[in-house]
Amino acid sequence: MSNDGCALSIDLGGTKVEIAIVDPQGTILTHERLPTHVENGAERVVEDILSGATALMQRSSYKIIAVGAGVAGQISSNGKEVLFAPNLKWRNFPFKEKLEKRLSLPCTILNDVRAATWGEWLHGAGKNCSDFLCLFLGTGIGGGIVAGGHLINGFSNAAGELGHTTLREGGRLCSCGHRGCLEAYAGGWGIAVTLKEAATSSPKKAAALIALAGGDAKALKAEHLSEAVKKNDPFAQEIYSQVIKSLSNGCVTFVNAFNPKLLIFGGGVALGMPMLLEKVQEEVKKSALGATGSPLQVIPATLGNTAVVIGAAAAALQSATFGSDSLRVHSA
Amino acid sequence: MSNDGCALSIDLGGTKVEIAIVDPQGTILTHERLPTHVENGAERVVEDILSGATALMQRSSYKIIAVGAGVAGQISSNGKEVLFAPNLKWRNFPFKEKLEKRLSLPCTILNDVRAATWGEWLHGAGKNCSDFLCLFLGTGIGGGIVAGGHLINGFSNAAGELGHTTLREGGRLCSCGHRGCLEAYAGGWGIAVTLKEAATSSPKKAAALIALAGGDAKALKAEHLSEAVKKNDPFAQEIYSQVIKSLSNGCVTFVNAFNPKLLIFGGGVALGMPMLLEKVQEEVKKSALGATGSPLQVIPATLGNTAVVIGAAAAALQSATFGSDSLRVHSA
Repeated sequence: MSNDGCALSIDLGGTKVEIAIVDPQGTILTHERLPTHVENGAERVVEDILSGATALMQRSSYKIIAVGAGVAGQISSNGKEVLFAPNLKWRNFPFKEKLEKRLSLPCTILNDVRAATWGEWLHGAGKNCSDFLCLFLGTGIGGGIVAGGHLINGFSNAAGELGHTTLREGGRLCSCGHRGCLEAYAGGWGIAVTLKEAATSSPKKAAALIALAGGDAKALKAEHLSEAVKKNDPFAQEIYSQVIKSLSNGCVTFVNAFNPKLLIFGGGVALGMPMLLEKVQEEVKKSALGATGSPLQVIPATLGNTAVVIGAAAAALQSATFGSDSLRVHSA
Repeated sequence: MSNDGCALSIDLGGTKVEIAIVDPQGTILTHERLPTHVENGAERVVEDILSGATALMQRSSYKIIAVGAGVAGQISSNGKEVLFAPNLKWRNFPFKEKLEKRLSLPCTILNDVRAATWGEWLHGAGKNCSDFLCLFLGTGIGGGIVAGGHLINGFSNAAGELGHTTLREGGRLCSCGHRGCLEAYAGGWGIAVTLKEAATSSPKKAAALIALAGGDAKALKAEHLSEAVKKNDPFAQEIYSQVIKSLSNGCVTFVNAFNPKLLIFGGGVALGMPMLLEKVQEEVKKSALGATGSPLQVIPATLGNTAVVIGAAAAALQSATFGSDSLRVHSA
């Protein structure tokens, strides 16, 4: 446990808020989870966070020098506003100012996926690596990019949307409105759509899968695929092979574009599927260019659900020490 | 014309070598073109380059302080060797050492597409921009990435292979061995394949196109599509719409992944097609995420065929002044 200044860190999602105190070595010293009452509006959500944070700081005696928050939404380039957070129903909300006013500490606001990438970089699977990608496979697919020793933010602070890269042009309609995105085939919701389509077109072959969903084909989810594959159901294995193929073909795009040393997979869907990383590594090495594919390693994220608070804390401490420009290079 | 030290710059391709003297402002002071006699082997090609370069330097009286070379191939991470250059038939060739030994000047070796990107960044369409992509559409598709004010090199110095990103999984076999790459649909050779397929399946509709190829459907090339579109041939326009669509769907990938301010198009195929940039911009803005699509501008490269020599010169001068580490950040 460190005597250095620590960070108060917040992982703000649409259903829950995780609040933690994290030391400079990335260790969570204490934490608390609250529900996010989105229906009460942004101001009340902030009040809940502030009450929780204040109580947590008072119960402990750590020296807090900075506040970091990873938010499930798009953050403005100046790091002050949450421009759009669909799950929170926030638009153009001055979150940084709200936190700083009441906590009287410097606050750093990041997109949650980029916070998690920052966490894996400094204290997780990407430690000491200058060129890697994080792919978080949950319901959707989020991405974080570290290239040449820099976290890529993009011109309007919106880089890393690796789930919304075209995999099958003109294909399945994605939640983003575009067709054929990687997420629509390899994200949790995309896998669920594939399972439901398969259950409709081949109900007999899909019997074991449907049974796992309580007999209701409409209730099929990605985890049922994982379960059925583990039970060696041949139809599930067939579907799983295609999911692996699609995910790998998407990763070929990233590997040929960025030439990372590591592809780090996180998220429930990625880590719940049997042998997913090994299979993706094998496929990508076969299909990428020799120069980009041969050095590649596909490995699991190591921080799990704590990546966002650990990353947001690390970003806040770096920003407090070296200035917020150390986190991003502003574009002309 | 500058009195500062200038660079001797080399653009080494499979059919010709361009040698130039370039000042720090990116102005080509004098230049010469030689054929590349690949069949004579690497050593003789270097001899030809050295003779041409020496003659050029002797004929002029510019003060040369550095040498830059853009090579159509993969360069080792330490910038010393050409690892693989299929059009030159070079493998693991110590090009930097060969040049330095005879010229007694510090030499900087870059991949030619990355050199061109460097040129467009410092002296062309990407001037003063910290987040942009260059897409060079010729026979194939090459890419250069500037993100957060850094040129992205990748872990093994092979980043930017934007032509080899998956557009249609399981689709047309690409020259790289993978299926469904962007290049296989929107690169010059891919467009030619599409034209030949269309001419075979719909010879009547394709009559105007085939006539442009001298009556030989097998001789169809990307420029025939361009010509036929300019003549308002309806079948050509139909095919062209699909090419635009494919190119745009590929660009959606790049825009959502990198969130660039600018997409800079260069190369004969991109700049020869009518209204290509305007159409791609319109399509990409429709299909990318709001946060990444709305700030995007699609613009033409401005240095044309001189991008590689201007970029290699700029990289050589920067490396000579600030050290070679200023060109790349080494990965762990």
